[in-house]
Amino acid sequence: MTGQIKDFIRTIPGFPHDGILFRDVTPLFGSAEGLELAVRGLVAATNETHFDKVAGIEARGFIIGGALAQELGTGFVPVRKKGKLPAATISEDYELEYGVETLEMHGDSVVHGERILLVDDLLATGGTAAAAARLVDRLGGTVVQVGVIIELPDLGGRAVLNSMGLSVATLCTFPGH
Amino acid sequence: MTGQIKDFIRTIPGFPHDGILFRDVTPLFGSAEGLELAVRGLVAATNETHFDKVAGIEARGFIIGGALAQELGTGFVPVRKKGKLPAATISEDYELEYGVETLEMHGDSVVHGERILLVDDLLATGGTAAAAARLVDRLGGTVVQVGVIIELPDLGGRAVLNSMGLSVATLCTFPGH
Repeated sequence: MTGQIKDFIRTIPGFPHDGILFRDVTPLFGSAEGLELAVRGLVAATNETHFDKVAGIEARGFIIGGALAQELGTGFVPVRKKGKLPAATISEDYELEYGVETLEMHGDSVVHGERILLVDDLLATGGTAAAAARLVDRLGGTVVQVGVIIELPDLGGRAVLNSMGLSVATLCTFPGH
Repeated sequence: MTGQIKDFIRTIPGFPHDGILFRDVTPLFGSAEGLELAVRGLVAATNETHFDKVAGIEARGFIIGGALAQELGTGFVPVRKKGKLPAATISEDYELEYGVETLEMHGDSVVHGERILLVDDLLATGGTAAAAARLVDRLGGTVVQVGVIIELPDLGGRAVLNSMGLSVATLCTFPGH
């Protein structure tokens, strides 16, 4: 499956700035076959565990997360950038190369005891996923599985998430990113 | 079905600014029953027409669009705000109350002759959906159906889209918004 997923991922040098090789999942999502591969791959990687909700990280995590929620028959809750959610939120900061970003969830989006599948398109340093997992934890939920399509293993995100006790499933890797 | 959908929609006064009654779909998406109602309602509204792709408008349209693409067995293509898509894009401007916004699609995200289901969470003035439909049209695709969860009928979006020859399906309305 790994090879097939990678066939749908496009590499774009210099986006969003010089020196970055951007791994673009839009051709994967745009293909019926590609989207199905991604959804089935992530469902398989979760070992058919029961989830109450899928949480997806803005914005590409909304696409794969919406598809996964539909496939699993669960609800979907968004993890958004600051100021985008209309009701009462909780927030967590995370560090980027330059500066600090903030993620938010609605305070009532996860109920105590709920089992959450946390998804995004890509795992790099793990800072974003770690902040999202902290939000779920503060709401009383449990991130049972983190699922991403692409892992950049040289950036160490898996170790960061594992150190929080989180299980990580990825569908393909780009060593050396 | 209309009543049921509305039961999951939360109204938040004053977001994003004073005088607005914001219709929040996150409780609908967050409920397994609510998301299923929305997906089944929009699929039913399309009269089982064949679509090649679902196009969703950033960002809430990504959630319902990802779920619909999974349900219909199609690919999903994003309609994004300016500067978010990494490869070559085409763009269309649309007017807001104060100023102009821009939507973009990847130039290769729709192929000539493809039949598109265009989705978003809410239809207000129709400016956003009209700009998205113009993008699909310029790429050689056909928006066969516009599907939204909520319509604010007093703002006239349906007439704007109908005047472009577009068929509009909505699952509930808030007259007087």
